[in-house]
Amino acid sequence: MDVTARLAAFATGPIEAPEDVRRAVRLSLLDWLACGRAGTGERVARLARGLALDEGGAARATMFGGGRVTARAAALVNGATSHALDYDDTHFLHIGHPSVVVASAALATAEAEGANGAAVLDALLAGLEAACRVGDWLGRGHYEIGFHQTGTSGAFGATVAAGRLMGLDAGAMGHALGLASTRAAGLKNQFGTDGKPLNAGFAAEVGVSCATLARLGATSAPAGIEGRQGFGATHAGAARDAALDGLGEAWVFPAISWKFHACCHGLHAMLEALREVRASPGEVTAVRVTTHPRWLDVCDQPAPTTGLGAKFSYRLTAAMALSGVDTAALASFTDAMARRPDLTALRDRVRVATDPGLADTAARVEVETADGRIRRAAHDLAAPPDLAHSEARLREKAASLVGGPEAERLWQAVAGLAAAPGLAALARTLAPHEAALA
Amino acid sequence: MDVTARLAAFATGPIEAPEDVRRAVRLSLLDWLACGRAGTGERVARLARGLALDEGGAARATMFGGGRVTARAAALVNGATSHALDYDDTHFLHIGHPSVVVASAALATAEAEGANGAAVLDALLAGLEAACRVGDWLGRGHYEIGFHQTGTSGAFGATVAAGRLMGLDAGAMGHALGLASTRAAGLKNQFGTDGKPLNAGFAAEVGVSCATLARLGATSAPAGIEGRQGFGATHAGAARDAALDGLGEAWVFPAISWKFHACCHGLHAMLEALREVRASPGEVTAVRVTTHPRWLDVCDQPAPTTGLGAKFSYRLTAAMALSGVDTAALASFTDAMARRPDLTALRDRVRVATDPGLADTAARVEVETADGRIRRAAHDLAAPPDLAHSEARLREKAASLVGGPEAERLWQAVAGLAAAPGLAALARTLAPHEAALA
Repeated sequence: MDVTARLAAFATGPIEAPEDVRRAVRLSLLDWLACGRAGTGERVARLARGLALDEGGAARATMFGGGRVTARAAALVNGATSHALDYDDTHFLHIGHPSVVVASAALATAEAEGANGAAVLDALLAGLEAACRVGDWLGRGHYEIGFHQTGTSGAFGATVAAGRLMGLDAGAMGHALGLASTRAAGLKNQFGTDGKPLNAGFAAEVGVSCATLARLGATSAPAGIEGRQGFGATHAGAARDAALDGLGEAWVFPAISWKFHACCHGLHAMLEALREVRASPGEVTAVRVTTHPRWLDVCDQPAPTTGLGAKFSYRLTAAMALSGVDTAALASFTDAMARRPDLTALRDRVRVATDPGLADTAARVEVETADGRIRRAAHDLAAPPDLAHSEARLREKAASLVGGPEAERLWQAVAGLAAAPGLAALARTLAPHEAALA
Repeated sequence: MDVTARLAAFATGPIEAPEDVRRAVRLSLLDWLACGRAGTGERVARLARGLALDEGGAARATMFGGGRVTARAAALVNGATSHALDYDDTHFLHIGHPSVVVASAALATAEAEGANGAAVLDALLAGLEAACRVGDWLGRGHYEIGFHQTGTSGAFGATVAAGRLMGLDAGAMGHALGLASTRAAGLKNQFGTDGKPLNAGFAAEVGVSCATLARLGATSAPAGIEGRQGFGATHAGAARDAALDGLGEAWVFPAISWKFHACCHGLHAMLEALREVRASPGEVTAVRVTTHPRWLDVCDQPAPTTGLGAKFSYRLTAAMALSGVDTAALASFTDAMARRPDLTALRDRVRVATDPGLADTAARVEVETADGRIRRAAHDLAAPPDLAHSEARLREKAASLVGGPEAERLWQAVAGLAAAPGLAALARTLAPHEAALA
């Protein structure tokens, strides 16, 4: 199937999507802003900024933390910064993190091009959808063999978003995607190192670079993704053509999964279930957590003594959640929290059981109180979210990450984007209010 | 085998190489300069320059054609520019074009870092040797499946050269190579498009970027090249560990092959053999060329009518060579040349035969004159070159490409590099003398 040409046509044509699809995009944009703002202090963010500031160049696009550099440099810095905490959104068809790559490329390009807000939202949607479709087309085998889809399919999504904002026609977009086919890269061997967030930044930069070169007239392979020795054939791609079914009419992006807890993904279903349980922590006599057995190797540290350990502990995070600790806040995961006497006491009343019949996205909880009452709840992360609920949760998460007033500022910029004549208001939210004023 | 760590130790240790190895490096540097200077007018060179000049930034490294930009941008531009004509050197172990990537990264970094000439030559040698060794370690299967080793193994060589010039220690060099493992890319699907020379530029930029990030403190996978899901395992690498035998003591780079004719490589053995034949073209009654049969599909156009066609014609280029036309000069391959009556008349007296017993790097010629005399000659490109002869030929080639006085200027800058306190003199040769003075 002519994957590259179909993507190019989609990327350059009208974007007609229902409101719930657009709302999901806005929510991911809010989440990206909050994650990026919260990531600015991380080492990888500081060193990427250091590289960009040292190089300088045309001040066209804003970096998280403030400062304007070239669009290519801002894409690199913002991709690495927004993925630094690994707290950004995930898509299971894409098998990776689409927004850190696509939003970083789209926002930097839009600011440099003087695009209006509606154009940015269209480009974001087109790029996110393209990243997810290409990720699905490449398939799980591509991921299993060692590729980091955030970097690989992400680069194609970034190219779509950046190229659309540059006004490429379908021919030039095809060349841009062809160039992306010879540049898209990223290995999972980087997990646990600065290379993981940098993969997101590199992919965002690749997108902006390939689109820019195509606009300048560069030619490339016409079937770069699906051709005989194209990206798919050389990178263990499944070439699952059905992944492109209904492109432009149906939307896979809204199956996006947002993280609401600043800890291992394996704990999230339990933490969501516990939100439905109201019990005074002092009265809780026993907690039973049931999870899929695959998670026991991942996040069942029984008695962690550090903040990092706490991020991988059913027992401690259950105690934190029942005690009203904000598990969405990065600051909640400290060594002191892991050792807080009331939490360790409650932690020791939590038992973890497994059920192989449970989906690995699901968990069940039972909370017993001194009065003998048992409260039961269950949650499956794979259930389609209610977007009003997600919006409320993402605004809470943003407040946990950057404080209430700043979170409100991010939300207002996102909510007003569709009608905004330019990117200035949104770009200012990449830096704290006081920095933006300075 | 710990490929990454061994390369990092080699790249950061003392470089002790015999004079003939260093001489081969200097000759490739001359050839790179001449090819880059001659490539500045090509479209891909102009658009890469356009991108760099539009972005601006710290003016630290010179581009072919003049103008200074960041080291990363200069590496990209110079890689694409020097490979634009596809007239640069080739290494059959590396399976690609090492100098366009490694020299572009090394020179840009050296100028930005204020390195002296001796340090540049060491970095060039280390980077070229590393590129060839990694290319050999990846093997022919990596190339056959679709990867363009110029881009892939080239990126590792560029990282070595740039990182050495930045003074990275072995630990940081390991991280730089680890980052290169998640960025190295390049597909042969770009052949025939601007993507081919851009692959060289991208690889050079990747090298400078990864070294810069490692210097700033970025961490990466410790066994990025050979690890379980490292570059080799994910990119059809053969993991031919013997390719690293004797690294730092024996040198594979001097098997480098320089192009002396501005046409298809399949014609070169014949053209070299014809150099040994002296006969007045008017007296030639018959020419018999014998070549390996694999070339018939590639470069046996019997009666080309265009300059491009001439580049793929045994018969016409034999007539050109016997008539004293400079086949090293790009300007010789024009439509008018293909139609010149004396050449087409001689062309029609040339017969091409094949011999499967001949190496595909070899050719035989027989030239018969009106007096009945037959002159015979043969040439095999795989024969080890005499460096004094190569030097003379490369200086002639440079003169064909940029004119005699400019070629002499390039040569003086290369010859004086080992004793040069800085890169200024060499950097000035990237632009024509008058542009450099302006």
